Amino acid sequence: MRKIEHIGIAVEDLEAANEIYSKLLNTQSYKTEKVKSEGVDTSFFKVGESKIELLAATNEDSAIAKFIAKRGEGIHHIAFDVEDIEAEMQRLQEEGFQLISKKPKKGADNKLVAFLHPKSSNGVLVELCQEIKKEPEPLPEGEEVWDS
Amino acid sequence: MRKIEHIGIAVEDLEAANEIYSKLLNTQSYKTEKVKSEGVDTSFFKVGESKIELLAATNEDSAIAKFIAKRGEGIHHIAFDVEDIEAEMQRLQEEGFQLISKKPKKGADNKLVAFLHPKSSNGVLVELCQEIKKEPEPLPEGEEVWDS
Repeated sequence: MRKIEHIGIAVEDLEAANEIYSKLLNTQSYKTEKVKSEGVDTSFFKVGESKIELLAATNEDSAIAKFIAKRGEGIHHIAFDVEDIEAEMQRLQEEGFQLISKKPKKGADNKLVAFLHPKSSNGVLVELCQEIKKEPEPLPEGEEVWDS
Repeated sequence: MRKIEHIGIAVEDLEAANEIYSKLLNTQSYKTEKVKSEGVDTSFFKVGESKIELLAATNEDSAIAKFIAKRGEGIHHIAFDVEDIEAEMQRLQEEGFQLISKKPKKGADNKLVAFLHPKSSNGVLVELCQEIKKEPEPLPEGEEVWDS
């Protein structure tokens, strides 16, 4: 785990929470993003090398809607930055941690993500995040590269 | 807020949790500390520029014992590093946040700390932390400083 990539906070109203966290952190949200597959709208703030991610549900089946219904608003997960998510998933499984999915999936903020079940980490939902590296862009058609 | 100083995690058994988090984070706890005034034993792990602080209650009146009785183990607070805690407390109060105490107090890990009430920050217990600067040590008696 190289750093805390972000802390995810479940909120009911993204716009209202955005206003609160811009005052709290004394900085504006630098990005909002809809993650359709998870049924959430997100908003990101930078704090040092880490981020605060506000998460609001866009439908009742979203994990965030269920979390808020059960426990109210609050901290939902901690995400750690890893270099190689598949290697880290394997290491943690061998150490006895329970993975929620067998393969990483595409999350918000250009990341591959995987979650550990909170019951193997003292009630803390842990996310692993690996930045998706950009493939080098292909040359536009018709252009050629000459050695100089 | 300059960085996430630490994430505080409420646990029942510090020794068992220490073992779990040393596997999870792939690093050993670098410090344990008893904070008598708060009724907690703590253990710290480094992750990038931040820390994970495990907190176990040493008596039933401790805030950590009450938290676990109500919600179970899990993330208890986020602490942000600030340069001037009194100035930051005043700024946040003027922004409408509710402070739990009027003055900072001495916390674990050589810090002055203050807490914001979770109801003003979407259910998140926020701690402000300022490192206690060491006073310059006085010269030993009998020694004098000469201009060269």
